[in-house]
Amino acid sequence: MEIKKLDLIDCHNRIKPFIHNTPVLTSSYINEITGAEVYFKCENFQKMGAFKMRGAANAILKLSDEQKCNGVVTHSSGNHAQAISLAAKKIGIKAYIVMPSNAPEIKKEAVKGYGGELIECESNLEAREAAAKDLVHSKSATFIHPSNNLDVIIGQGTASKELIEQYGSFDHILVPIGGGGLIAGSALVAKYFGDNCSIIGTEPFEVDDAYRSLISGKIETNITTNTIADGLRTQLGDKNFPIILDEVKKIIRITENEIIDSMKLIWQRLKIICEPSCSLPLAGIIKNKDEFKGKKIGVVITGGNIDLDNIPFLRQFFITP
Amino acid sequence: MEIKKLDLIDCHNRIKPFIHNTPVLTSSYINEITGAEVYFKCENFQKMGAFKMRGAANAILKLSDEQKCNGVVTHSSGNHAQAISLAAKKIGIKAYIVMPSNAPEIKKEAVKGYGGELIECESNLEAREAAAKDLVHSKSATFIHPSNNLDVIIGQGTASKELIEQYGSFDHILVPIGGGGLIAGSALVAKYFGDNCSIIGTEPFEVDDAYRSLISGKIETNITTNTIADGLRTQLGDKNFPIILDEVKKIIRITENEIIDSMKLIWQRLKIICEPSCSLPLAGIIKNKDEFKGKKIGVVITGGNIDLDNIPFLRQFFITP
Repeated sequence: MEIKKLDLIDCHNRIKPFIHNTPVLTSSYINEITGAEVYFKCENFQKMGAFKMRGAANAILKLSDEQKCNGVVTHSSGNHAQAISLAAKKIGIKAYIVMPSNAPEIKKEAVKGYGGELIECESNLEAREAAAKDLVHSKSATFIHPSNNLDVIIGQGTASKELIEQYGSFDHILVPIGGGGLIAGSALVAKYFGDNCSIIGTEPFEVDDAYRSLISGKIETNITTNTIADGLRTQLGDKNFPIILDEVKKIIRITENEIIDSMKLIWQRLKIICEPSCSLPLAGIIKNKDEFKGKKIGVVITGGNIDLDNIPFLRQFFITP
Repeated sequence: MEIKKLDLIDCHNRIKPFIHNTPVLTSSYINEITGAEVYFKCENFQKMGAFKMRGAANAILKLSDEQKCNGVVTHSSGNHAQAISLAAKKIGIKAYIVMPSNAPEIKKEAVKGYGGELIECESNLEAREAAAKDLVHSKSATFIHPSNNLDVIIGQGTASKELIEQYGSFDHILVPIGGGGLIAGSALVAKYFGDNCSIIGTEPFEVDDAYRSLISGKIETNITTNTIADGLRTQLGDKNFPIILDEVKKIIRITENEIIDSMKLIWQRLKIICEPSCSLPLAGIIKNKDEFKGKKIGVVITGGNIDLDNIPFLRQFFITP
């Protein structure tokens, strides 16, 4: 199925009652040190704290009445689980969330707080997939993948659509790459609404499957997932990869230290709480200053769900030995 | 001089080119636990990171051409120093900032970064006042007090004015009280633009001079300033106190633990970085739930300038033993 301009417009109108048109922030300091004009689209202020609400709302709203009656299921311990839970609650349907029993309590509580029904399983991918499959069979629930689902992909793109609608054309929009849903959706928006706007991906060196996939032309996998950008440990899928291959010309790889430095800069200068994954685009601009000098650049700040009581997390970022 | 409605309108128009109309955030979770409808006016996103930019810009813009030629002077190691530096730079005049030589490097750098000329002195109030007086004489510079100056007071009020313009009438607007500039300005805005809107102050128990002043009818002082809300250690002055006495009916006192809990809640749920001083209004709503239930409430988040590399600060707030 080829996605058309009208699909993106319809999607945006469909989800508008369920999402925030999130604020856009700028920083004179960041513009000064980069030599660029950078607009941060703050999806950390989105409902449930991440852009994932957009795709989840669209995927659920597009279900048939019968599918809605039977509810939805996903396996995730991250933002997608919370997004599906909240979107399902707002739309008035049931959400089953499969999560490993050893997932952090704070994530389990968040899902339950948003009204999702938690199904615990063993901590491995097979157990999670089996539990989700079980629910698809026993409850006739519809499985919604976090990134490899066209309705999810289109939904995620609406963040960049709002950015362009509010601030006019951009030279580039930079996003992080995890499962590939956000960059695929953003690339479609750039294609139909951007005036020669290129979408650039940013990815940790430690999980550079998308970077390698773009070179080889096939979906590559990661051997390790050793990055602090915990939202980006996943890999591309057969629904989003063809879009990425067609529309994305460049992916910048970022080191772990660059992620930390960029995150500190965002917290300190933009005065926002964001997840480590959010800091890759700014790191990409800083490490390629010459390329981006004088350009008008959009950045999607993807989410703000971190656990401030998590000691190792804060130590790692802000407490120098 | 009695301040009139037109003074506030003129001030707001005067400073608009030099300030941001800052975003307003809400949180379903905070509304749920308080039973109120709370709108957070985020002055942490203001230029230089605090509402102080408003008053500083107004005070400088109101100077005569001759005064502008000679520049301005203040003594402060906080947000007012940065605000005066940046406002002076934007307006194209000279700013002399007196600061104790043992002030944190990060604060000295911030002032210099915004173009202020730093004059260091010994670390006591007499030395600071003497150094400022010196500059008033030697340079004919105009001294601008951080809170006890009518032009500053009116400027600070514009944050609440924007809130009312954008979101309609409020039952209450809650602000923290330090030197009294913000609450006096907000009270004037409520008087002229609020539809029966009451301004409520919030103040640490440890520095409750305003609370006691409202009872005694005269300016009371603090014996200690032992609060983590470092922006609120100052006291009222003869320009703002009469306004506060006329217009403010209630001040809620907040414990140090309540400040910490409320600050964590704001960071975690609103996804913003704010100073400890910002968290008092929400703490006041939470501890007086019954009174505020069902009400529409504005809160001014006053600033976001904290040092994320400051280990004790983060330990105190987020790292439980």
